[in-house]
Amino acid sequence: VRASAVILAAGRGHRIGSGENKAFLPIADRPLLVWTLLAFADVPEVSEIVLVVAPGEKERVRRLLQTGLPPATLVGGGDVRRDSALAGVDAASGEIVLIHDGARPFASVELIGRVLAGAIEVGACVPVLPIVDTLREIAPGDSLTAAVLDRERIVRVQTPQGFRRSLIRRALQTAEPDVPDDAGAVLALGEAVRPVPGEETNLKVTVPGDLPLAEAIAEIRRPDRT
Amino acid sequence: VRASAVILAAGRGHRIGSGENKAFLPIADRPLLVWTLLAFADVPEVSEIVLVVAPGEKERVRRLLQTGLPPATLVGGGDVRRDSALAGVDAASGEIVLIHDGARPFASVELIGRVLAGAIEVGACVPVLPIVDTLREIAPGDSLTAAVLDRERIVRVQTPQGFRRSLIRRALQTAEPDVPDDAGAVLALGEAVRPVPGEETNLKVTVPGDLPLAEAIAEIRRPDRT
Repeated sequence: VRASAVILAAGRGHRIGSGENKAFLPIADRPLLVWTLLAFADVPEVSEIVLVVAPGEKERVRRLLQTGLPPATLVGGGDVRRDSALAGVDAASGEIVLIHDGARPFASVELIGRVLAGAIEVGACVPVLPIVDTLREIAPGDSLTAAVLDRERIVRVQTPQGFRRSLIRRALQTAEPDVPDDAGAVLALGEAVRPVPGEETNLKVTVPGDLPLAEAIAEIRRPDRT
Repeated sequence: VRASAVILAAGRGHRIGSGENKAFLPIADRPLLVWTLLAFADVPEVSEIVLVVAPGEKERVRRLLQTGLPPATLVGGGDVRRDSALAGVDAASGEIVLIHDGARPFASVELIGRVLAGAIEVGACVPVLPIVDTLREIAPGDSLTAAVLDRERIVRVQTPQGFRRSLIRRALQTAEPDVPDDAGAVLALGEAVRPVPGEETNLKVTVPGDLPLAEAIAEIRRPDRT
């Protein structure tokens, strides 16, 4: 089975406070996006990488790719995540597509393999993790409320999310513009999505407080990568 | 203000699959519990550490403490978290108590300071983090449901949780046996709990998959600790 990785890196990084795209943020000695690309380059079934970037940043990403990185098809992203994902899927040719947050630099080869296997079998597969911390609601006015959410049946959904290309294409074409993730578009069609175990190290770099953790993971990853 | 740290380390570690208490699990070159103790030893306001352990493990922990660690009062834990926390609070003498999961080895000095300041001001304070991943429900039969939870107002609650000792004592004495955390006991009394920013590195070691991340954090912490 041929699989395409579709990496979404069109975000602006408002929450990280850098003012520029998180993709270029250095983690250890490499831009974040380079870590993400290398993660997929190590998976034999991934025969193609489609990189969805802000139209104004194509040139900068192209130069980055010329520094000895795996080849990738560059595609301009849309205004919302749904549109960026659809642009990426439309440019992909694999029977399976693995749609991934560009800001998750440390998905392991094993994780990507699990998602791929689930997508081949069921048509749609996502990595999930249990909730370890207590979940509470914040009330307006900055106090916690007494409500506690039942965490037993709730999972955190990560990426890559793997799909048969024909299924995710149809799902994204009909999805609401604010669908939170690609699995949501498939679930809205009434199709099944298989959960497989995610990884705590597969974090999404979102706020400045995530950087120390990302640096720590980069340190342990370095030996495999160079 | 004098503060007491109450560290809950009476758990059995079922989910980690070690069959023994997680407290003794090696992280980098030290038992997990040693990392936890050292985190509090670095905070000047913490004048006392109370360590709640399974009654049958007191002797083993006592020997561990004799290896040059900060002094701690050992207390036997109860059957449920609530009872262990109350036993710890009853043995503490500080005006403020900081109740902490023994399985969170990497709370920073800054984090502990934020919780302490909030507890002094409001009476109860907990570290929280936003939810970055999409939250979904798992249906019986291992498929995801289409329900997506509104994550905007939901936070993950970590420890240490800081309280005026008199308040948390009253709260735990009247709390349900299955109260998920100590803040829950205070909220059940109708008292306010202030949220302050938590830290992603303040992870709870719960399943074997958490160990690579814990090792990574230990690596970046090592220079400050030795």
